[in-house]
Amino acid sequence: MTASAYQKLTEIFERAYYLKRTQSLLNWDSAVMLPPAAGPIRARQMAIQSELIHQTLSDPHLGKFISNAQAQESTLDIWQQANLREMRRLYRQHQAVPEALHSRLAEETVHCEQAWRQAKTDNNFKLFAKAFAPLMELIRKKSETLSSALELDPYSALLQDYDPSVTKIDCDSLFTSLSQKLPSLIREVTTHQAEIPESDPLDWDTKSQMKICRQVIRDLGFDFEKGRLDKSAHPFTEGGVNDVRMTTQIEPHQPLHSLLSAIHECGHALYDLHLPPDWHTQPVGAALGMSVHEGVALFYEMTVARSTYFAHYLHQQCQSIGLSTTVDNIRIPLLKVNPGAIRIQADEVTYLAHLIIRYRIETKLLEGSLEIESIPTFWNEQMHNLLGITPKDYAEGCLQDIHWALGLFGYFPCYAIGFAHSCHLFRWLQEEIEQCDFGKILQQLDHHLFSRGSMDTKFFLLNESVQTTDPAEFILNYLEDKYLK
Amino acid sequence: MTASAYQKLTEIFERAYYLKRTQSLLNWDSAVMLPPAAGPIRARQMAIQSELIHQTLSDPHLGKFISNAQAQESTLDIWQQANLREMRRLYRQHQAVPEALHSRLAEETVHCEQAWRQAKTDNNFKLFAKAFAPLMELIRKKSETLSSALELDPYSALLQDYDPSVTKIDCDSLFTSLSQKLPSLIREVTTHQAEIPESDPLDWDTKSQMKICRQVIRDLGFDFEKGRLDKSAHPFTEGGVNDVRMTTQIEPHQPLHSLLSAIHECGHALYDLHLPPDWHTQPVGAALGMSVHEGVALFYEMTVARSTYFAHYLHQQCQSIGLSTTVDNIRIPLLKVNPGAIRIQADEVTYLAHLIIRYRIETKLLEGSLEIESIPTFWNEQMHNLLGITPKDYAEGCLQDIHWALGLFGYFPCYAIGFAHSCHLFRWLQEEIEQCDFGKILQQLDHHLFSRGSMDTKFFLLNESVQTTDPAEFILNYLEDKYLK
Repeated sequence: MTASAYQKLTEIFERAYYLKRTQSLLNWDSAVMLPPAAGPIRARQMAIQSELIHQTLSDPHLGKFISNAQAQESTLDIWQQANLREMRRLYRQHQAVPEALHSRLAEETVHCEQAWRQAKTDNNFKLFAKAFAPLMELIRKKSETLSSALELDPYSALLQDYDPSVTKIDCDSLFTSLSQKLPSLIREVTTHQAEIPESDPLDWDTKSQMKICRQVIRDLGFDFEKGRLDKSAHPFTEGGVNDVRMTTQIEPHQPLHSLLSAIHECGHALYDLHLPPDWHTQPVGAALGMSVHEGVALFYEMTVARSTYFAHYLHQQCQSIGLSTTVDNIRIPLLKVNPGAIRIQADEVTYLAHLIIRYRIETKLLEGSLEIESIPTFWNEQMHNLLGITPKDYAEGCLQDIHWALGLFGYFPCYAIGFAHSCHLFRWLQEEIEQCDFGKILQQLDHHLFSRGSMDTKFFLLNESVQTTDPAEFILNYLEDKYLK
Repeated sequence: MTASAYQKLTEIFERAYYLKRTQSLLNWDSAVMLPPAAGPIRARQMAIQSELIHQTLSDPHLGKFISNAQAQESTLDIWQQANLREMRRLYRQHQAVPEALHSRLAEETVHCEQAWRQAKTDNNFKLFAKAFAPLMELIRKKSETLSSALELDPYSALLQDYDPSVTKIDCDSLFTSLSQKLPSLIREVTTHQAEIPESDPLDWDTKSQMKICRQVIRDLGFDFEKGRLDKSAHPFTEGGVNDVRMTTQIEPHQPLHSLLSAIHECGHALYDLHLPPDWHTQPVGAALGMSVHEGVALFYEMTVARSTYFAHYLHQQCQSIGLSTTVDNIRIPLLKVNPGAIRIQADEVTYLAHLIIRYRIETKLLEGSLEIESIPTFWNEQMHNLLGITPKDYAEGCLQDIHWALGLFGYFPCYAIGFAHSCHLFRWLQEEIEQCDFGKILQQLDHHLFSRGSMDTKFFLLNESVQTTDPAEFILNYLEDKYLK
């Protein structure tokens, strides 16, 4: 008896899944463990692993199996049908990118990331620009190739890698509305908060910072039998079911930043750990796109952790490990709105301004209306206009994020759309948040979102709500309610 | 212009090299970092990576490229010719093992290793035996398949994976001589040492143990820009040029065991880090088999570190980090011969007895003259006969080593042949050892051995010396000189 086409497909996608998990380990290890001299070796390992994944998912045999499986679709159950839909989508995306282009992208990305690290350390934009130019060229090629294959404009074609449910029109609309209203909201909130007294700085040492991070994420529901928390220069999460690795960045005099980073990553980790266990090796078992993923992470970081309720909970936790402080010294910095240069350290209100800038730059770069060498000037102008500040150097300015150096064009909108998801989640789980009932929050998210993988094609809450409110309005209402009342 | 056959071969072997480096990271991470729940996922990742390597190295196209490259051999330089020789050897070995058998071996190995861990913890031999039986069956199949392809007896065929320069006849001769003379030598040495006073135990905490380990291996020449030292349940080394990861086992009341383990692994690490830089991705750039590799590790652990000179050096190091002790409290345990149950904690004289037992068992298992269920009885009889002791449980007895659970049949002789290499290295570098001139020792090893990769087919020192002395005699003379004079 020969295996059915669908069965063969599941085997191929399972293989690709495990290859990706290995790629993910290579990534994590690069940031957390790798000895300095091993950069070039790791780069080759990652490029080869990336080629293997692309080869597996663009193999022309897949196309035949998919057609055959579709012919038998009536024999499949609803999860299998959704799985086949996701398989087809992934195959279309991979197959549209020629192997040679994919390999060149993998190589240039590695070079550009290395140049970016050096450039950021040396405050040398030219060094970055030189490595970024050939990568940008390839990203443009990829977007054009995908554009004609997927019948989408070039930017929307890139978005499909991260969130297949949105297009450039959605992003334009969201960012336009936000940019029209955010600057005045920021002014209003800072005026409103002018009377709030200064709090005493929290000076916790590295060990205490890691201890409180571990304690809080355990309370949020993270299972250390299934993952790790380490330190790295930039916080991130890698892995999947049964093995999620997250990192946080330890800031000597800013322990709440370390904690909020850990909480953000914990949101990602909880999602990954609760994906449908029977489907985790299959496309339908993956998360519902990166906007929803970032939405969950921002939900934990912004709406759960930046609240008076959480400040009280955290104060108790601090006391339990012998860190003496007051509730106010925690609450005030969690809720204070204060324009700053660094996105990942931004408060809930100014955070969105950072995304507007990145969106403007990456769409302009792609369409060719902004030159790479003009990024710093444009960046600083935008920072000045939206937040009234000027970064002190490139590291604090246009070189702060790793995304473009990794070739991740179309990723930044996920944070903004995710922000809207986060506000929706807040409305839905407001009562549990006020009680710091983290168990109930996780249970609800697991049941309605995490354990459904990519069974649905849109996030159910947003789906319902967009019928009445547009995402920008929803975000702005949430922020006004929280910060002006 | 099309690439030459030789050029194509180097590309394929380079790819296999990077796939192996990734496999190596998966291994290291499994032992040092992996969250407990992720075992089954890691097993699949490793099996898939192993299949990819095997597919790459057994691809029938390779055979054609090798024939074509041999036809052009006169255009190759001597390194390239040696590389081609190693390529042909590796291809013959891989190609002889059918892909289905290789995959089944990879899967069963993973199951058996997991069962072994559990069995060792639970002191349950039956649990191990059940998982080992199907693996043993496959190892027998592999040895028969390789045997006919390589025209060697089944055990010698397995040896080729670890040391292509030896056969079962060499091993039989070595182990027979050793087993005839070792028991009486052990009695003589223990009698000779009866008057040595007891030393005070060294009670260094975990942190101090790791500190002294790091300090010593740095002095031996290990570069922390190119590798790491971590803790694990069993010491091992993984990696290659520019990124070698070694581990040591921290024994609460036995800090010298932790240190000697770290020194042993450092021997492996130094070899891997000094392989010929221009050739590290190619077969000729690999180490000269595992006997020589273990020889270098044993050289550092046994002949360099177990000496009065080293005790003085170590005493100084201890003082420099504030660990107060006497030279005698270090020297006495380093040189004391004391039969014990655990191989990796054995002294220099009784160490070989452990290898005799394993060699006898694995050759009998392979030829079918010993049943798996009879291993514990046979083990304990042999322990009693050779060392006069009885292990207190399976963990201290026949389940102590991971090798058989990993399917590594034919590996244990490498330690014994390596021991002979180690004695030869001692004769050669005696002066530098007496001066604890670690820099000079490394320089000599690098120049004459490490940086030559697999350019030669036999280790030059052994080559010269076997003309006058057989390995067993050489080992026994060394031990008598050191421990009876």
